[in-house]
Amino acid sequence: MISFLPLCSHPNPKSVLIVGGGDGGVAREVAKFSSVEKIIQIEIDEKVIEISKTFLPFMAKGLTNSKVNLYVGNGYEFVKQHTNEFDVIITDSCDPIGPAISLFQQHYFSSMKKALKPGGIICSQAGTIWSNLDHIKKTLYHCKASFPKVKYGISCVPSYPTGQIGYILGSLDPETNFQEPVTLFTDDELNKMGLLYYSDKIHRACFELPRFIEKEFLI
Amino acid sequence: MISFLPLCSHPNPKSVLIVGGGDGGVAREVAKFSSVEKIIQIEIDEKVIEISKTFLPFMAKGLTNSKVNLYVGNGYEFVKQHTNEFDVIITDSCDPIGPAISLFQQHYFSSMKKALKPGGIICSQAGTIWSNLDHIKKTLYHCKASFPKVKYGISCVPSYPTGQIGYILGSLDPETNFQEPVTLFTDDELNKMGLLYYSDKIHRACFELPRFIEKEFLI
Repeated sequence: MISFLPLCSHPNPKSVLIVGGGDGGVAREVAKFSSVEKIIQIEIDEKVIEISKTFLPFMAKGLTNSKVNLYVGNGYEFVKQHTNEFDVIITDSCDPIGPAISLFQQHYFSSMKKALKPGGIICSQAGTIWSNLDHIKKTLYHCKASFPKVKYGISCVPSYPTGQIGYILGSLDPETNFQEPVTLFTDDELNKMGLLYYSDKIHRACFELPRFIEKEFLI
Repeated sequence: MISFLPLCSHPNPKSVLIVGGGDGGVAREVAKFSSVEKIIQIEIDEKVIEISKTFLPFMAKGLTNSKVNLYVGNGYEFVKQHTNEFDVIITDSCDPIGPAISLFQQHYFSSMKKALKPGGIICSQAGTIWSNLDHIKKTLYHCKASFPKVKYGISCVPSYPTGQIGYILGSLDPETNFQEPVTLFTDDELNKMGLLYYSDKIHRACFELPRFIEKEFLI
C-alpha cells in the first residue's frame, strides 16, 4: 500500500526515491510499476539490509532489482541535497522515536517538496489512529504546510500493534484526488504483478475512516 | 458495526433478536434505530451480564433499554423455538470454540432462516481473515446453504487479536445489496445517535477485502 497508493495517484511516475525501507519490500513493489524507470533508495542502517538479505530474501530481492540504486546514509540529509528530481518519494521509516524522528517534522516535508518534480507526490509511514492519533495530527499539519493536497489512509497489518498502519500522502498538484486512482489495473495485471492485497477498490476504501477520526482530521 | 450493518441493510427492521451480546453494547446500539420496536435478547451466561453492569455500565445500559426483553438461556435452542418472528437476528457470540461452536454451524443458520420474517437479515460475529480464514470459509458455506445473499465485512477493533473482526451477513431477499445501505443517516443524525465509528462510507468500505481474500471467498 505504501507503494501503490502514491504510484497509482501520480499520472506518470518515472523517478522514485525510497527513504528507509531497507528490508527491500517497498523497492520490490515500486519496481513492478512499468512507468517507473529509476528508483533511488537511501537506507540509514546497513545491518537492516544484511539481515533482510539473510532472513527475508523474498523482500530483499527488491534491493537488487535493475531499476534500484541503493545507498547507505541519512535519508533526511539526502533529501535536502536534491532538487526537482523525483516524481514520488516514499518514506518507509520506523516509528517517530529516536533516529527516525526527523522524518516526521516540518523541515522534512519542505525538503521533500523541493526534491520533487512539479506534481510530485509523497507517501510516508504514519502510525496508527488507535495509538498515535496526536502524532498523526501533528505530522498531517507539517505535511499541509508544504503540500496543497493531503490525505491519510489505512491498511491492515495484523503483525503491527493494533493491527493497522496508516500513510500520509501529499501532492504538489492541488487537483490530485487521492481517493480515485489515476492508474487502474485489470485483475490479470494485478495477478501478474503478484499483488495480494492492493486493488483499486481497496485503494478507495482505505481512505474511509471512522467518524471520530474524520472529525479529528477534518481533511 | 455488528448492529448497523444489518439494520441499515434491512428496509424496515422492527423486531430484532440478539443472541449473546451479554455486555449490552449491541442492545444499546440496536435500540438507537428508530424503526426498531422490540428487541429480544438471549444471553447464555448470567455472569457476563452481572460483570458488565459492574464494570462496563456504559455498555450494560443497553440491557435496560425499554425496547429490550432480556432472557438468560441457550440461544441456539431459543432460535429453534421461534418461527417467522424477527426482521434481524444478530449473533454476538464468542469465538467458535467450546459453548459457542453451535452458533457457527449449518443447523443454526437454518434455524435462523426459519425464525426470520420474509426478507429477514442475519449478522454474526465471524472472526478475522488473518487467523480464522478456514473457519470463516466454512461458516460462509453454512450461511449460503440457507441464505440466497451472503457477504463478509470487516471492521477495525484494535483490542482484538490481529486488530480486526469480521461479520457474516445473510439475507432472505436475494435483491439485498449489503454494500449499499438502504437507510442513510445525515451527519447530524449520526451525531445524535452518538455513532463514533459507523457512517454509510464506512459501511460500503468494510466489504472491500484484500485481493487474496476475495479470491478465497468468491462471493
